[in-house]
Amino acid sequence: MYSKRTDLAIESAELLRAAQKKNARLPGILSDVSQQHGYDVTAVRVLDEAGEKALGKPVGSYITVDLRPYFQRTAGAFSRAVDCVAGLLRQLLPEDLSEKSVLVVGLGNRDMTPDAIGPLTVSHLLVTRHMIASLPEQFQGFASVSAFCTGVLGSTGMETLELIRGIVRQIGPAAVIAVDALAARKTERICTTIQLSDTGLIPGSGVGNHRKAVNQETLGIPVISVGIPTVIDAATLAADILEEAGSKDFDMGHHGSGLFVTPKEIDLRVEELAKIAGYGINLALQPSLNLETLTGLVG
Amino acid sequence: MYSKRTDLAIESAELLRAAQKKNARLPGILSDVSQQHGYDVTAVRVLDEAGEKALGKPVGSYITVDLRPYFQRTAGAFSRAVDCVAGLLRQLLPEDLSEKSVLVVGLGNRDMTPDAIGPLTVSHLLVTRHMIASLPEQFQGFASVSAFCTGVLGSTGMETLELIRGIVRQIGPAAVIAVDALAARKTERICTTIQLSDTGLIPGSGVGNHRKAVNQETLGIPVISVGIPTVIDAATLAADILEEAGSKDFDMGHHGSGLFVTPKEIDLRVEELAKIAGYGINLALQPSLNLETLTGLVG
Amino acid sequence: MYSKRTDLAIESAELLRAAQKKNARLPGILSDVSQQHGYDVTAVRVLDEAGEKALGKPVGSYITVDLRPYFQRTAGAFSRAVDCVAGLLRQLLPEDLSEKSVLVVGLGNRDMTPDAIGPLTVSHLLVTRHMIASLPEQFQGFASVSAFCTGVLGSTGMETLELIRGIVRQIGPAAVIAVDALAARKTERICTTIQLSDTGLIPGSGVGNHRKAVNQETLGIPVISVGIPTVIDAATLAADILEEAGSKDFDMGHHGSGLFVTPKEIDLRVEELAKIAGYGINLALQPSLNLETLTGLVG
Amino acid sequence: MYSKRTDLAIESAELLRAAQKKNARLPGILSDVSQQHGYDVTAVRVLDEAGEKALGKPVGSYITVDLRPYFQRTAGAFSRAVDCVAGLLRQLLPEDLSEKSVLVVGLGNRDMTPDAIGPLTVSHLLVTRHMIASLPEQFQGFASVSAFCTGVLGSTGMETLELIRGIVRQIGPAAVIAVDALAARKTERICTTIQLSDTGLIPGSGVGNHRKAVNQETLGIPVISVGIPTVIDAATLAADILEEAGSKDFDMGHHGSGLFVTPKEIDLRVEELAKIAGYGINLALQPSLNLETLTGLVG
Repeated sequence: MYSKRTDLAIESAELLRAAQKKNARLPGILSDVSQQHGYDVTAVRVLDEAGEKALGKPVGSYITVDLRPYFQRTAGAFSRAVDCVAGLLRQLLPEDLSEKSVLVVGLGNRDMTPDAIGPLTVSHLLVTRHMIASLPEQFQGFASVSAFCTGVLGSTGMETLELIRGIVRQIGPAAVIAVDALAARKTERICTTIQLSDTGLIPGSGVGNHRKAVNQETLGIPVISVGIPTVIDAATLAADILEEAGSKDFDMGHHGSGLFVTPKEIDLRVEELAKIAGYGINLALQPSLNLETLTGLVG
Repeated sequence: MYSKRTDLAIESAELLRAAQKKNARLPGILSDVSQQHGYDVTAVRVLDEAGEKALGKPVGSYITVDLRPYFQRTAGAFSRAVDCVAGLLRQLLPEDLSEKSVLVVGLGNRDMTPDAIGPLTVSHLLVTRHMIASLPEQFQGFASVSAFCTGVLGSTGMETLELIRGIVRQIGPAAVIAVDALAARKTERICTTIQLSDTGLIPGSGVGNHRKAVNQETLGIPVISVGIPTVIDAATLAADILEEAGSKDFDMGHHGSGLFVTPKEIDLRVEELAKIAGYGINLALQPSLNLETLTGLVG
Repeated sequence: MYSKRTDLAIESAELLRAAQKKNARLPGILSDVSQQHGYDVTAVRVLDEAGEKALGKPVGSYITVDLRPYFQRTAGAFSRAVDCVAGLLRQLLPEDLSEKSVLVVGLGNRDMTPDAIGPLTVSHLLVTRHMIASLPEQFQGFASVSAFCTGVLGSTGMETLELIRGIVRQIGPAAVIAVDALAARKTERICTTIQLSDTGLIPGSGVGNHRKAVNQETLGIPVISVGIPTVIDAATLAADILEEAGSKDFDMGHHGSGLFVTPKEIDLRVEELAKIAGYGINLALQPSLNLETLTGLVG
Repeated sequence: MYSKRTDLAIESAELLRAAQKKNARLPGILSDVSQQHGYDVTAVRVLDEAGEKALGKPVGSYITVDLRPYFQRTAGAFSRAVDCVAGLLRQLLPEDLSEKSVLVVGLGNRDMTPDAIGPLTVSHLLVTRHMIASLPEQFQGFASVSAFCTGVLGSTGMETLELIRGIVRQIGPAAVIAVDALAARKTERICTTIQLSDTGLIPGSGVGNHRKAVNQETLGIPVISVGIPTVIDAATLAADILEEAGSKDFDMGHHGSGLFVTPKEIDLRVEELAKIAGYGINLALQPSLNLETLTGLVG
């Protein structure tokens, strides 16, 4: 058996079902598919310890938007994608953020194309905290939004959690939204999917190291994650190919260690997906705005 | 009289002397010129409240390196500039940082060429904190260096001081080094000067707002600043020109408000100066390294 | 008398009128003001050699759009600005470009914020030449658009004209559109104006060197320029200030040589203006598209 | 059998030998291994049509430097790598370029990390053509170097060959050096190898389209290529894994189409390799310079 790395709960559930070789209900896990604004939305809910153990993901909600129709570029595709993400985010965020403070954090490395989702998303945010401080009357009813990018351990010397915790303690937001690139398992999910979750995330991800998780437990406030799969671990792809080919005991050896797989048009894809994520976050946090107004306010 | 904005203590002292129209010793201020590694170094020391009032700068040391000879590109100019900066920084930093922790912070906007000094300097740093944590034996005797860029208020919604304070409280360094672009008054100082100080700095600078100063008082630990003048306030340059022309009561009106003056080759200059600053900081913090070894370790 | 540098014909005409100290009709120059899509548009036409000599600009049309109302960010401001630029460009371009080829060239230095107008504009273009070659039926009726950035002499070793001429001879377009940052004279025109002209442009500009002009004479095909003033020559601003102050014979000496003046929010401004210019060019070249469709196709 | 894509002649030769299942001399192909400046250098020479057919690469020299020891970061590793590349390039370049003109072209996409080798290499070049024109006496004996980046078809609408040909015809260099990222087949060659060749290169590469090759035949002057493998085609890696696992007739189906494999530290690797390539080109073209002088002149 080969180990399969994925950061998507929807794929963990698929693996689980495949392993059971039947369509049995998974214990402690609820799954639900709907269509919203023209996109398929799959909500996987881990209900209890049994579900946690079965799925390998903490208790909470994992909502996946399938954005493949977006790339057919039909009329209104961008606006519907943004509305879809905003609506789902509002369900995960604490109710009524009006005049409350939210910190949005972009994780990852802006100099590595598939890892730039977090910083690029932050570049599309409507940051309001300083404007509310200067012009409180004009911004009545707005959520107070602040934002920053954590950079990467090799450049800062600081764990993502340390940086976020330091800033959270300083400015005291009501919630954190953390945006990061993810690893998926299936090629068709790469750069076509957004996963929203109320369980936070684990920077660098996949192989969990729970000391470093960015979540309600470690920060003391709700942490909503926005994750976009842009890579497949090369060893995971190799394992899948071998399994399909019927090979069960091949030694992966040097293949794929320290390598990842990513699509050829990755530079254009991350820009588009980060814009959908950024605009979705803006509309989720500021329900009084619409897309047209927003376009005049952010990049 | 026109107001003259400068972030350089050496220029404030010049203005003061000019105002006195004699070479009288300034009360509460000591000034000293030397040559180090081929560069002129001017140390202005503000000794007490009298000096503070006279110079308009807090008590402390302000050391200016004149890098004009560097741009004649004689042999060894880079290596001597780095050694000069490193030596002066060591005088300002707490003694024996071996195995202690230092946080280096880059202020300013990487998307605005003359304001990119801070982020560019940080890109040349040898960050060691995470490596010491993983490989304590290999890094025995090294200072533990962490680094980050604050971004700008419009993008983060957070004051520079808030961000730094949050991180300082989280990771507890022994000192902070803050790197920023400055405004000078004289055209010949633009992109030719580095000012080192143990008094910290005021982000956005010039017109002081003491709540927001980044210094020992606000952070509780020594704050060493590394400042490089890259712009002149347009109103300051205009005022100087008018004064020289003998005009004393001209209404500046709309001229120069919200404008700055900067040299045509600013993109190349900020890259070179940030490299000198970054390498100087590295050698100041890790006295066991030399320039050759460092070149193989950082960008 | 101080020399006044400006790349804007509208300002040369103002200087000329001021010098005549009356509102007399200028010989060989026609000037006309209108409102289009909510923006003031001034067309200066140099008719003959007399006009050329008086204005110091070659025979041709110089159309200036005043975008100051855009920055009040009223509803539809972006869409109206794009329509205004597109409509004016169509008047300057050869008629019926359908299925003809146009080369758009971005001049300037992407690493220097106020000089990045050209490269940033090019990043917003709908480039179609390669798509028409692959899918001729789907793109019937489209103009064939190709684009590139010249870089700067210090990085390429080649004059802008050499590069453009080489590519023009290779691919044989029906017209060239050249986009560049300009120097203005008045602070209120900086980052608020677009000048369109059918006389081409002189890279690096201002102090003319006619060997290197990029125009119909040197390329053999129509050259339309799109210029956006982002800087003032520091010596020009100083001269204006001194003149207003009544000083007539001041020695500028070292002041302002090699320096330019630019606004503090230059990074945001060049991004917005480049987007207006890029979208305006797209709609001028492809009249069958509208803004909404375009937004889904370009960055 | 699966198709194996590689841009490295050394790997094509390996495949060929493996297919022959013996160590027989390959017809029309000479191969030679040496050590130069501490790095293994393999020269594969395709001698005639027989070799061309066997190897699938045109007649000419393919020299591969194995830079794995560089990443052990021993003393002098950078300087030795640069000397090694410079020495090999000099063998491929026309003799005595003093006062002759060379055009260096960077291919690829600077916004896609593994494809940024070409543009990054160009950023390290000592461009002299314009300086020689201005100061001919100071630059006596120097080669006249010009440089530019082609961008990508999707952004320019022009084939790489069209752009280069247009510029070559305009400025008339004695030779072209073309720098590009390559695809390799073996994981251990990714980001550890530089291939130099006198056969030019095929942009986008791999699956040859001979109309578009950039070589002596299409440009009329010698074309030396500097290629650095930064990716593996995902389908190639999958095929290798399946073959090793003994599977011979698996349908690759959707796996790997449009995907590539690249290492996790790709951002740091491309920067280092582009610096080695750029400095190597500089020293090959200007034998009168040494590394120390060069460091003061280029980024």
